[in-house]
Amino acid sequence: MKYCLVPIGFVERGLPRYKSRTKIRSKYEYIAVIRIYDEFLDGLIGLEEYSHLIIVFFMDKVEETRLLVKPWGDPKYPNVGIFSTRFPPRPNPIGLSVVELIKVGRKKIYVRGLDAWTNTPIVDIKPYDYHDMVKGVRVPQWFIDAWNKNYVEKRYYELVPWLGPT
Amino acid sequence: MKYCLVPIGFVERGLPRYKSRTKIRSKYEYIAVIRIYDEFLDGLIGLEEYSHLIIVFFMDKVEETRLLVKPWGDPKYPNVGIFSTRFPPRPNPIGLSVVELIKVGRKKIYVRGLDAWTNTPIVDIKPYDYHDMVKGVRVPQWFIDAWNKNYVEKRYYELVPWLGPT
Repeated sequence: MKYCLVPIGFVERGLPRYKSRTKIRSKYEYIAVIRIYDEFLDGLIGLEEYSHLIIVFFMDKVEETRLLVKPWGDPKYPNVGIFSTRFPPRPNPIGLSVVELIKVGRKKIYVRGLDAWTNTPIVDIKPYDYHDMVKGVRVPQWFIDAWNKNYVEKRYYELVPWLGPT
Repeated sequence: MKYCLVPIGFVERGLPRYKSRTKIRSKYEYIAVIRIYDEFLDGLIGLEEYSHLIIVFFMDKVEETRLLVKPWGDPKYPNVGIFSTRFPPRPNPIGLSVVELIKVGRKKIYVRGLDAWTNTPIVDIKPYDYHDMVKGVRVPQWFIDAWNKNYVEKRYYELVPWLGPT
């Protein structure tokens, strides 16, 4: 049994696929542009009343599935199951980014925090609401180490003061 | 262009499809059981180190798509676009629940907060981490009204003290 998705739009401006072509070092450093196809535009009505969204996309360039991964390939981290990470080579390469909504245009949405390459198909947009807000989250030590290195030390909280644990 | 998903498991115990068959009034009132198929079990390694997960499922019983909906069919709420709600009749009926992880068994995961019927196919499991934590969320007034009626007045914060805005 298979379940199939149709794109409702695509990433018009996302992360460049090849890191050498960009100076962007984080999904929080740029404003992504999502183009919604005309037949789905009515679905956006009222979206501007939310400050944050959950963007669901299909990582169509992922060609392999791995059940065990080493976070960022770094030997100091443990091997963990793919479902214990957000890495792409999943059985179903569905991507999910919590983003700040910057602007809703007529056919485009502008967001900060999208972790998708340019041209990635978008399959759903959901509002981020109170059901998504968790207090007192527990995560593995390898995640905390990476967070401190990538977000705290690089002062990303200046770009996205709304993000992260309290 | 279509993008297809394969189930990695299914909801062994979820919400009953017909409300008359249950006294459960909220996804937070019961412990859901998710069975993962044998070939994907390695992907669960390390999952128990997280307190919360994001469960991604395919709402296979949804038969219609509506771009405009009235929240809970209640005339006092405004018509809004489907992407401004979490309601099921979406162009791609992908469901997403932020849940509390109760236990990881050998082939099963026990969680609180799953908004899916029994037998719903599961397509992805993601850890809930610091990238999903947003402070100072803004939502529409209709959402706040519903939240106060459904969560605050019914004292669901006693069941799920980890949930909701600070």
